[in-house]
Amino acid sequence: MTRMCSKQREDGLSAWRRVAVFATAVALSFVPGVSDAQAPILATSQDKAQDRAPDKAKIRGFLTGHVAAERELEQKLQRLPSSESAERTLRILTSTPHMAGTDGSRRVAEFIRDQLRSYGFEAELVRYRAWLPQPTEVKLELVQPETKALGTPEEPFESDKDTYDKRAVVGFNSYSPSGEVTAPVVYVNYGTQEDYRRLSELSVGVEGKIVLARYGRGFRGVKAKVAEENKAAGLILYSDPADDGYVAGDAYPRGPWRPMSGIQRGSIQYTFIFPGDPLTPGVAATEQAQRIDPRWAQNLPHIPTMPVSPRDALEILQHLDGPQVPREWQGGLPLTYHTGPGQAVLHLKLVMDYQQRAIYDVVGKLRGQHDDEWVVVGNHHDAWVFGAVDPSSGTTAVLEAARALGELARAGWKPRRTILIGHWDAEEYGLIGSTEWVEEHAAELQRKAVAYINLDSAVSGGNFGGSATPSLRELVREAAREVADPRTGRSVYEVWKERLEKGQGPRSPSALAPPIDAPRQNDSDPPLGMLGAGSDFTPFFHHVGIPSLDMGFGGDYGVYHALYDDFYWMKTFGDPSFVYHAAMARMVGILVLRLAESDLLPFDYDAYATEIDRYRNELEVLAKVSPEGKLDFSALRDAAAALKTSAARAQKALEAHGGVPMDATRATALNRQLVDVEQALLAPQGLTGRPWFRHTIYAPGTYTGYSAVLLPGVREALDRKDWDTARRETSSLVEALHRAAARLDEIARVASSNAKVEKPAAGR
Amino acid sequence: MTRMCSKQREDGLSAWRRVAVFATAVALSFVPGVSDAQAPILATSQDKAQDRAPDKAKIRGFLTGHVAAERELEQKLQRLPSSESAERTLRILTSTPHMAGTDGSRRVAEFIRDQLRSYGFEAELVRYRAWLPQPTEVKLELVQPETKALGTPEEPFESDKDTYDKRAVVGFNSYSPSGEVTAPVVYVNYGTQEDYRRLSELSVGVEGKIVLARYGRGFRGVKAKVAEENKAAGLILYSDPADDGYVAGDAYPRGPWRPMSGIQRGSIQYTFIFPGDPLTPGVAATEQAQRIDPRWAQNLPHIPTMPVSPRDALEILQHLDGPQVPREWQGGLPLTYHTGPGQAVLHLKLVMDYQQRAIYDVVGKLRGQHDDEWVVVGNHHDAWVFGAVDPSSGTTAVLEAARALGELARAGWKPRRTILIGHWDAEEYGLIGSTEWVEEHAAELQRKAVAYINLDSAVSGGNFGGSATPSLRELVREAAREVADPRTGRSVYEVWKERLEKGQGPRSPSALAPPIDAPRQNDSDPPLGMLGAGSDFTPFFHHVGIPSLDMGFGGDYGVYHALYDDFYWMKTFGDPSFVYHAAMARMVGILVLRLAESDLLPFDYDAYATEIDRYRNELEVLAKVSPEGKLDFSALRDAAAALKTSAARAQKALEAHGGVPMDATRATALNRQLVDVEQALLAPQGLTGRPWFRHTIYAPGTYTGYSAVLLPGVREALDRKDWDTARRETSSLVEALHRAAARLDEIARVASSNAKVEKPAAGR
Repeated sequence: MTRMCSKQREDGLSAWRRVAVFATAVALSFVPGVSDAQAPILATSQDKAQDRAPDKAKIRGFLTGHVAAERELEQKLQRLPSSESAERTLRILTSTPHMAGTDGSRRVAEFIRDQLRSYGFEAELVRYRAWLPQPTEVKLELVQPETKALGTPEEPFESDKDTYDKRAVVGFNSYSPSGEVTAPVVYVNYGTQEDYRRLSELSVGVEGKIVLARYGRGFRGVKAKVAEENKAAGLILYSDPADDGYVAGDAYPRGPWRPMSGIQRGSIQYTFIFPGDPLTPGVAATEQAQRIDPRWAQNLPHIPTMPVSPRDALEILQHLDGPQVPREWQGGLPLTYHTGPGQAVLHLKLVMDYQQRAIYDVVGKLRGQHDDEWVVVGNHHDAWVFGAVDPSSGTTAVLEAARALGELARAGWKPRRTILIGHWDAEEYGLIGSTEWVEEHAAELQRKAVAYINLDSAVSGGNFGGSATPSLRELVREAAREVADPRTGRSVYEVWKERLEKGQGPRSPSALAPPIDAPRQNDSDPPLGMLGAGSDFTPFFHHVGIPSLDMGFGGDYGVYHALYDDFYWMKTFGDPSFVYHAAMARMVGILVLRLAESDLLPFDYDAYATEIDRYRNELEVLAKVSPEGKLDFSALRDAAAALKTSAARAQKALEAHGGVPMDATRATALNRQLVDVEQALLAPQGLTGRPWFRHTIYAPGTYTGYSAVLLPGVREALDRKDWDTARRETSSLVEALHRAAARLDEIARVASSNAKVEKPAAGR
Repeated sequence: MTRMCSKQREDGLSAWRRVAVFATAVALSFVPGVSDAQAPILATSQDKAQDRAPDKAKIRGFLTGHVAAERELEQKLQRLPSSESAERTLRILTSTPHMAGTDGSRRVAEFIRDQLRSYGFEAELVRYRAWLPQPTEVKLELVQPETKALGTPEEPFESDKDTYDKRAVVGFNSYSPSGEVTAPVVYVNYGTQEDYRRLSELSVGVEGKIVLARYGRGFRGVKAKVAEENKAAGLILYSDPADDGYVAGDAYPRGPWRPMSGIQRGSIQYTFIFPGDPLTPGVAATEQAQRIDPRWAQNLPHIPTMPVSPRDALEILQHLDGPQVPREWQGGLPLTYHTGPGQAVLHLKLVMDYQQRAIYDVVGKLRGQHDDEWVVVGNHHDAWVFGAVDPSSGTTAVLEAARALGELARAGWKPRRTILIGHWDAEEYGLIGSTEWVEEHAAELQRKAVAYINLDSAVSGGNFGGSATPSLRELVREAAREVADPRTGRSVYEVWKERLEKGQGPRSPSALAPPIDAPRQNDSDPPLGMLGAGSDFTPFFHHVGIPSLDMGFGGDYGVYHALYDDFYWMKTFGDPSFVYHAAMARMVGILVLRLAESDLLPFDYDAYATEIDRYRNELEVLAKVSPEGKLDFSALRDAAAALKTSAARAQKALEAHGGVPMDATRATALNRQLVDVEQALLAPQGLTGRPWFRHTIYAPGTYTGYSAVLLPGVREALDRKDWDTARRETSSLVEALHRAAARLDEIARVASSNAKVEKPAAGR
């Protein structure tokens, strides 16, 4: 899987501007020697740090006396990742197909374990048993107006021998039920709720039809759910050339975009209800775990669904009648799109082999001085086929970072905090390896984990981007200032900023699988997206409240979940000299070192509180559109304001530290409390209708799937005009904000009582 | 040919708003009983007449006592056009191909003459001899990387027997030279100056190459000239499905858009230098006329040029290398467009048979009481193949209007002014029939013609639109208020206004041949475009200064200049019941009656003067971008202001008429002067570099071809940074404005001396 941060993109300029301004404000207020009067809580535009070089004598969260050692350590680390080593690793990881539940995946897990051990990590496989389907028979044929077999396999290309590998799984959507249906076809554009509404206006019914939807504008599992809600009998998903094929740019192997025979595999599990093993909701899928009957699994879809190539879609579309589609529904295939139905009748037959199958996470550990504080890094290792970008570029970068950290340890360094590295299995099926592990270790993680750094499709080009909980956004920017962009020699941060200022995105008008967020606003600081779903940060962030971030270098990438996402693709288009893999390893290394070595965790709750108050305001504006709900937001307004006040007070108290090294016990207490603020934002009972998701500020949208919805409990109840739920969720949110405020007040108290101690500095 | 009023479209909201406001102001100030104080020269927004029903007791330019008779006449006229008759006429006109210079064209001319005679008109053929090429050999083949014959003929369709007609001319561009070239290919998008600049930035050279340009965004003759200026060896033009093919909507015969084998024929004569017979510039191509050597003909292009179908273009494009094209250059064919050059090498061979060929205009006359005042109506009759829309829908509407006028005459009516009807030949080659006739009768037309009403592709749907000299715009709107829209039964005006308010245009993002102007602004009055070139109003308006207008009902129309623009197309898509043909005949009839019968010609010079001052202001803004020219616009500013003052004064004087019938001699004098104002705007020496074009306010753009450029002498000199010419053209423009002001002053003087006479009313 990968992530689509389209929500962030839609948020537009104003969101970015505010984030940037407040992030800067906090950075400033952290700088030693700046008095309270000089460090306003809300910075003005003059305060923007955009053209200031980072102050090398300071690092956010580090005592002045510790900065030199940290810088030296970071410099050593930066010299260690190697593009040659990265290329070798990627070649090995992508040498055979390694879908979850197959031997290929187990062998990749063993390779990773062995690598981690060779770097000096403790490392073990962690085995779960998950309910995984594999396709026994996937058949699609046109039966009217002519008989024609569809669902044809992806075409091999002589220049890329891997594409001849017979072990590649056919195109299928995992968690589709088995089933057989023969029916006329209706084209439903992207298959969103809005698209079905439009069809209804055009008097085109979909009940009992096979609906043909193009990929894009949201998670495919949502398309399956919406098709089911509209009583379609089956769902065919395809990749339109307007989205990630020849309209975007040259198709593989001439260019990096999807060829006419390319198929996007992928899960349609309802991960927005809950991810992970469908039969063990909320608990780990260990050998002995109690399992529910698959009929009761709430994250399983119910209508037969399969993906096809643009070539097959063209065969279907050319036999559709009905009205011409609305202008914006016209895709890039060479014909005028009609809604259908028409002459085309499809016969779809799917036989899925559902079994309990073994999956293998790899968990490695580099033990720190405080083994009860963990910095966790992770990505998945299973791939639909070869998975060069998704996920092996991330695996490679994490392994290069681990190798570098191991080298530092070998040279005598012992991290202050323990570093955990997780390589998760079965992410593609529904974030299963990470979810089961988080579920198994939920309590321990909530006690020990200080942050989770996720990688996935970490390299498909050279354009940096990411998403993060607001408290970590400035930390990501600071790390990006430290790492050199391989192409230009300037910092990743500068290139990132300049690219966004110039509005340079991918060539495609709507590339389907940008591995990173690439908003096109113009402002001083490059923005980071919100954490939605779509990769393994989901259980860490949404289920147990660990501050999380996700990042990558993106590029023109049209072979998402296709046979062609392989070593040759990477070597030819994505990162031919593997320098961005090495740069990503440096980014991971710097972030790990700053999180593992800092005296006080470099979190920015002032920015977070301000961000939350902005969401609160947007929610109120939205609620005014439906005044019949008569919702009272005064308590929410007060709670958001209180959180801002508490965050500002905590900030001031932390700043008021001065001069002398901090008492270890108090530092530990403060760090514990800093981590706890995020967990305070979880609702113990979870969100209405999907209790696995507990974060009150963010959730993957029920009708978007990947991208985040803000203050989701209240927001989605409002969308449904369910006023009772909206009131209950508002109370739950208010409580969460008060809990978070209370923890910030405690930070202020502890920090004030320790006011003689030197305060840690900001990173600039 | 047809017209593309893209300039108007670009002008946008503000232009329309101003036109609307001032047009309304004048209408008001013409209303009897409104004192000077109540009739401000510049109306405010409260004055807008948008929701007022027309006042049936008044008609612009008619004495109150004459209104009832005019209304009765108009009602009689409106009952006469018939959709059955229109269908019969169109079927006859489109029964065989009738390209200019062929027997088909002569036979159509004879049919028209006979029809006019049968309606009671005097009618004669007028014969000229023009230098017309016909294709002897048109050959295009791919010779690298494989041999493949291109230039394939248009595919016949069983549902439309006419498409099997062997007499249809092959796809060719008239006035291409003969020639033979073998060269690699470069794709140049629309082939505009800007497109070649972009290629140069991409380091793609076109010298010695065959350039492949898509149709659209300007006249194809301009593409030929720009290709020549960039030293291309040959030019291939094609129709991209993104512009008028399957991306816009279903292709013929399923829908009205261009099929993959459809070819747009068309002239590449440099009509923006001068139109008409290339060998007799400025004089009529009579039998005995002196002719220049073709080598010296300034309106003839020099590189071999031919049009191909989208299918052939795909064959070429798929063998191009070089960079991927800029995003907005990507068309609708199923591949990623590259600039080239590449493997593709084309062999182009054209043998053109250039000869003096006879062409036949038809000129009919319904003699009025004043045979020295002519209302002229015209359209062309030659077609590339069958020409159902272009031009036969216009011919049909004009003939239906003539039949109706003839009926009125038969019933005893004699028009006040003579009505002339011209059906021009060889318009498709370069406005030849109309240009030669205007050149032959220039002096007489300048003495006698009061207005020219042009039709061409008059019906391809039901969306009304038009272009007109500013003094006639309100008249067109008033006529549209009188005629019922066949689909809705409401007035053409109301439907027109509502459509534009709703922003409804054709489905295509850039339909290539909208026969009418369809701007998408939102304001109270629907706008009319500027007169550029592209149809037979050109010689009347730009060469001899006759107030002109052009109009039609447009729709989804993708078969422009293709074999498929035939009767079956019209019967299936354009106007299946021929009711819009009849409605267009009514529009023509009403306009003719109002122009032929009015006591004072219903011209609106207040609006015109205001419009000119707006262009003057835009010009000054534009000149500020190049301050190095140091142009002094004070004289121009003064002249434009003087024109406004004189127009307002004339308006007031005309309003001051009151109560009693006007003295015939004075009315004649006033009408003469009203006509002369437009001619006063001609520069006797013409525009720099193209003296045939003499209008100082409008000309077809040298680098757009169809659409109008404003204050063209100064404007194009500015664009070239030719400051000397800009100064000289400014003087010429200043003189023209002063001449026009002087005539308006004379109108004021004559009208004031006649102030006892009843004044004519406005139409609302």
